Amino acid sequence: MPAVSQKGRSMPQSPIRKLVPYAEKAKKEGVRVIHLNIGQPDIKTPKVALDAVRNHTLEVLEYSRSEGSEEYREKLAGYYADNDIHVKAEDIIITTGGSEALAFTMGSIMDADEEIIIPEPFYANYNGFATAAGVNVVPVTSHIDDNFALPPIEQFEKLITPKTRAVLICNPGNPTGYLYTKEEIKKLAAIVKKHDLFLVADEVYREFAYDGRQHYSILQEEGLDDNAIMVDSVSKRYSMCGARIGCMVTRNKQIIKTALKFAQARLSPPTFAQMASEAALDTPQRYFDDVKEEYTERRNLLVEELQKIDGVKIGNPQGAFYCIAELPIDDADHFAKWLLEEYRLDGETVMVAPAAGFYSSSGYGHSQVRIAYVLDKESLKRAVYILKEALNSYTHNG
Amino acid sequence: MPAVSQKGRSMPQSPIRKLVPYAEKAKKEGVRVIHLNIGQPDIKTPKVALDAVRNHTLEVLEYSRSEGSEEYREKLAGYYADNDIHVKAEDIIITTGGSEALAFTMGSIMDADEEIIIPEPFYANYNGFATAAGVNVVPVTSHIDDNFALPPIEQFEKLITPKTRAVLICNPGNPTGYLYTKEEIKKLAAIVKKHDLFLVADEVYREFAYDGRQHYSILQEEGLDDNAIMVDSVSKRYSMCGARIGCMVTRNKQIIKTALKFAQARLSPPTFAQMASEAALDTPQRYFDDVKEEYTERRNLLVEELQKIDGVKIGNPQGAFYCIAELPIDDADHFAKWLLEEYRLDGETVMVAPAAGFYSSSGYGHSQVRIAYVLDKESLKRAVYILKEALNSYTHNG
Ligand SMILES: Cc1ncc(COP(=O)(O)O)c(C=O)c1O
Ligand SMILES: Cc1ncc(COP(=O)(O)O)c(C=O)c1O
Repeated sequence: MPAVSQKGRSMPQSPIRKLVPYAEKAKKEGVRVIHLNIGQPDIKTPKVALDAVRNHTLEVLEYSRSEGSEEYREKLAGYYADNDIHVKAEDIIITTGGSEALAFTMGSIMDADEEIIIPEPFYANYNGFATAAGVNVVPVTSHIDDNFALPPIEQFEKLITPKTRAVLICNPGNPTGYLYTKEEIKKLAAIVKKHDLFLVADEVYREFAYDGRQHYSILQEEGLDDNAIMVDSVSKRYSMCGARIGCMVTRNKQIIKTALKFAQARLSPPTFAQMASEAALDTPQRYFDDVKEEYTERRNLLVEELQKIDGVKIGNPQGAFYCIAELPIDDADHFAKWLLEEYRLDGETVMVAPAAGFYSSSGYGHSQVRIAYVLDKESLKRAVYILKEALNSYTHNG
Repeated sequence: MPAVSQKGRSMPQSPIRKLVPYAEKAKKEGVRVIHLNIGQPDIKTPKVALDAVRNHTLEVLEYSRSEGSEEYREKLAGYYADNDIHVKAEDIIITTGGSEALAFTMGSIMDADEEIIIPEPFYANYNGFATAAGVNVVPVTSHIDDNFALPPIEQFEKLITPKTRAVLICNPGNPTGYLYTKEEIKKLAAIVKKHDLFLVADEVYREFAYDGRQHYSILQEEGLDDNAIMVDSVSKRYSMCGARIGCMVTRNKQIIKTALKFAQARLSPPTFAQMASEAALDTPQRYFDDVKEEYTERRNLLVEELQKIDGVKIGNPQGAFYCIAELPIDDADHFAKWLLEEYRLDGETVMVAPAAGFYSSSGYGHSQVRIAYVLDKESLKRAVYILKEALNSYTHNG
C-alpha cells in the first residue's frame, strides 16, 4: 500500500477534534452538552446578506474573477475606508475564508523551512497552514498574568534568524481576547522594518473590540506598506462562517501579484458567498452595536462568574469572543474528556477547549482552557455553574 | 522591502492569463472577441440547484462539517452508485472545487521534491498545485497523431524513480478531449500496483463522454482500493463553476484520514454551494441527455469545420469539451496575441489558448491551440470561419 506523505502525517489535529467523539457519545446518551468550545457564533446573519442570495437571479452560476468580483472588492475598499484603513480594490484579493488568505500569504512570503514568529497561545490552525506550506512556526510566549499582551520586543529580536520571514499576530486574539494597543503595533512595525520582515495581522475579529476600545490595524500604521499583510474574513463579522469569504489586503504590489497566482490556480472564490458578502456591507451600524452590546454583556457575565470559582484565573478579554481560563487542574485534556465522559449535573455537562493546543512550546497551557462566549447568557451562566461544580468534584476525586 | 518567496516567484501563470489584457483592450475598442479559450460552460445551471439556494431558510450561515455535510455526502454516494462507482459517504471529502481536492491530494501523498507523473498536454493548473505543494511534475508526452491516447506504459515505467509517488490522469481530458479506455485504465492500475504508487484520476468531465462511449472510472477497477484517488467537481457537471464544490473520493482510509486534517485546517467548504450541489443531484436525466446532445453537435461542427482548413490537424475528441488543434504556424503564443491585437474580420476576432502551456516538456505545443466548445453553434461556426481567414492572412503576411 502506498504511504501517505510525511507532511500529511505531520498535519496537526485541532485540540477540539479529539473530543468530538466523546461529545457525540454523551449526546446520544441524552446528555445536554453546553458548548464553550466553539467559534461558530450563534448571532443571526444580517438579513440583507441572506436575502441577497435568496433573491439571486443567476441562470448560470459562473466562476468569478480569481481575485474576487470587481464590485465586491470596490465596495469592500469602502468598508475599510470607513474603518480608517485606506486601501484600493487592487490591494485586495478575495479568498475562500480567512483560512485561504492565510494559506496564500504563507505561500507568497515563505519557502520550505523558513520561519514565522507567532505570539502564543495562537489560533491552532496556523500550525496546519504552516505544516501544509512546509514552514516552521517559532512561538514567543505571552502570559495570562500580563493579560496576554505583546511579549517584550526583545524576545522577538532574540528569535529572529536568517530564516525568519514574518511575524504573525492575531488582533484581537483568538484564543486570548487580547486587543493590541497602537504602541504595541508600532513596536512590531519597527522590528519588522528593521529586519526586513513581513508583518501579517489576522484581523478577522476587528469588529469585536469592547469597552470603547479602538482596534488599530497594521494597515493604519504609516511606513509599513511594503511589510504589512492583513488577513480578514466575513465569517465572524457578519456571523456567516459558512459563506467562506475572506480576503488578504496589502499595499505591497509584489505580494498581490504573487498571491494572485495562487488564486488563479484555484480559479475563483465562491460566487453565492460573494453575493452575500457584498450585500452584507450594507448591514446597518445598529446590527454591530447590538452584537457588540450582546458580546460585552456575555463577556462581563463570563468573567464575573469565572472569577467566583476558587482557583480560577482569567485575563481581561477586550476583544473577539474568547478567553483563556486557568483552572486548578494539571491536565486540561484529561479534564475536558472527563467532563464529556463522566461528569453530569442534572443531565448536563460542558465542553471546553484544552489550551495546550494553542501553544506551540511544549509545557504550556496544560492547566488552561479556552472558553468561547458564543451562546446566550442563560446557557453561559449555567455552563459556568456546571464548570464550577465539575471542578469541585474533579479536584476532590481526581 | 522583504521579498516574495521563491515558491511564489515560481508559481506558473496560466497560458491564457497573459492574453487577457489584449482581449480586454480589443473589447474596449468595440471588437467582438469570440472566446474559444475558456472552460466556463454557457449551459444553464439546473433549476433545481439554483432554486435550492433561492429557497434557503437559513438564519445563521454556519460552517458545515470539514468533510462536507453528512446529507450531501450520503446523497453523493448514491450518485456514484448510479454511475457504477460503489463508495460510501465516509470515502468522500467535500472540497472547495475540484481544485482544492487536487491540493489536498498532493498534500496527502507527496512531500517536497517528490514526483508525480502526468501525461501531457494536461490541465495547466496542475503545475500551480504542484508548485504550491513543492513537488515536481514529470510529464510523459501523448501525441496528436495518436489522438492523445495513453502513451506506451513502458514510457511511464522509464520515468519511475524512488521519488515517484503517483500517476495523475485527467479522464476525459482537458485539453485533449481524450477518453481513456478500460484497457488503458487497467494498464495504469497494473503499473501503480507494481510500483506501489497512487493513481489519481481527475474525473471532473465524467458526464461528458460522447458517441455512446462509457466512462470507466479508476474506482470501478478492482484491487485498486489502496491506490486510487478520484477528484471530482460539480463545476462542469451542472454548469455551476461558481459554486466551488468538488470532492476527493478514495477507499484508502489512511488517505481520507490525512486529507481530513487538511480539510479541518480550512474549516469547511461553502454552505450555500453545498445546498446547491446537493439539490443538483436531483437534476433529471433529461438535462444531461440534452447537454450531451448539444455538446456532441458542437463537437461535430467544430471538428468538421476545422478539418476544412488547410494545414490544420485535430484529434478525435470523445469527451469533455475541448480539443487540441495543430495549426500551420510556429508560435501559437504570437498568433493568439496577434488575433487579439491586430486581426479583425468585420469587427470580430477570436481568442484561443496557446497549447504550449499545457505541456510541461519544453518544445511541445508551439503550433497547437486548445479550443473549447462551450458556446452556441452559430458562434462556434463563425469563430472557426474567422480562425480560417485569420490563418490565411497570418501565414501569408507572417
Ligand atoms: C483567528 C482566526 N483566524 C482565521 C479564522 C478562519 O476563519 P475563516 O476561514 O472562516 O474566515 C478563524 C476562525 O475561527 C480564526 O479564529
Ligand atoms: C481538468 C480539470 N480539473 C479540475 C478543474 C478544477 O475545477 P473546479 O475547481 O472548478 O472544480 C478544472 C477546471 O477547469 C479542470 O478543467
